[in-house]
Amino acid sequence: MDESRSDRKRRAILDAATTVFLSNGYLGTTVDEVAAVAAVSKPTIYKHFGDKRRLFVEVVAGTVDEVSDAVLAAVSGLVDTRNVEAELRELAQRQLALVLRPRVIQLRRLVIGETSRFPELGRTFYERGPGRTIAALSEAFSGLDARGALRVADPVAAATQFNWLVMSAPVNQAMLLGDDRMSTAAELGRHVEGAVRVFLAAYSPREDLSRDQDPGDKP
Amino acid sequence: MDESRSDRKRRAILDAATTVFLSNGYLGTTVDEVAAVAAVSKPTIYKHFGDKRRLFVEVVAGTVDEVSDAVLAAVSGLVDTRNVEAELRELAQRQLALVLRPRVIQLRRLVIGETSRFPELGRTFYERGPGRTIAALSEAFSGLDARGALRVADPVAAATQFNWLVMSAPVNQAMLLGDDRMSTAAELGRHVEGAVRVFLAAYSPREDLSRDQDPGDKP
Repeated sequence: MDESRSDRKRRAILDAATTVFLSNGYLGTTVDEVAAVAAVSKPTIYKHFGDKRRLFVEVVAGTVDEVSDAVLAAVSGLVDTRNVEAELRELAQRQLALVLRPRVIQLRRLVIGETSRFPELGRTFYERGPGRTIAALSEAFSGLDARGALRVADPVAAATQFNWLVMSAPVNQAMLLGDDRMSTAAELGRHVEGAVRVFLAAYSPREDLSRDQDPGDKP
Repeated sequence: MDESRSDRKRRAILDAATTVFLSNGYLGTTVDEVAAVAAVSKPTIYKHFGDKRRLFVEVVAGTVDEVSDAVLAAVSGLVDTRNVEAELRELAQRQLALVLRPRVIQLRRLVIGETSRFPELGRTFYERGPGRTIAALSEAFSGLDARGALRVADPVAAATQFNWLVMSAPVNQAMLLGDDRMSTAAELGRHVEGAVRVFLAAYSPREDLSRDQDPGDKP
């Protein structure tokens, strides 16, 4: 990698800031401490990031992008797969492995806790995290619908449902019950199997044959 | 209501503490301020609640119990219903109306933000909130399975899936995107309809006839 000196400094500051924010929280972090950990001067931090607020948004964006980039890479395998069920399970496992890392759970807690005072943070997290994943899933489900591998009338709704069916139970447990009550690999495996089964019951084209929808039920 | 003087004081302190914690956060709240808002002395607060930490746990427990009691009352309508689909929709709407109140969203943010430092808080929230709801739903789904209105092999898994299918998308949006991006009533209605449709595709006994499960697929 041919990083310029300025890029290297920027990266060192971001790494240091991630560590310090995650261990001290937003209010408990000072730019002095980040400067000390990054071994740069305070003016260097201000030059690169403006202020502490902006630095924190960059830390959040950086960590969330890292996760989303990896999730999106996994989603891209979905469109051409010959085994939708297996591919959905693999994607779900991958997604959970990424978001359940202690650093990511910790950041999620921090962002949610600061959102009332600091709305830009929650928006950054949502748009670059769940927002991006749901958009990519939605496109993939459209493609699968187009070639008849799924039957999805509303791809955004289906993507939203899949995302939270997979994510919510383990992520909420990790966020609220802490690291000592993290799901085991076997529990996650069963959870993913159940989530994919429910999703495919609704969207697999085979199931569709038997669904007795009553068009007179609701307009 | 024949509340004793001590009960009335306790309630006044809890109401004041809820207001102050929600507007200032945990670290930003002092017992002095709660005492001033409740119009009681500081020793009275210590006598009733021990310390600030314990007071905050009581505030969280009180708010979460209020929501859960109402959700559980709605769940109780499920077992004997003759229209499972309509009842699930009604339950989901009721649950969302309860958890999306700004005060509850605000408390959820606060609890998640404090869980790293203060694990008891997250556990209290989880066990009295989602934990209790999922347990009640699980029992209701068992009952519906027993009388053939649903086909649910694993009631806890089904309850967990239903809970998060309904809750996650709107709650995450409210928590991360803030009050100005709250779902409209029409959006919530469509969301609930979709969640119930997906759930019933997996668990309605009619659907079950067509499900071609391959027992050789996975042990």
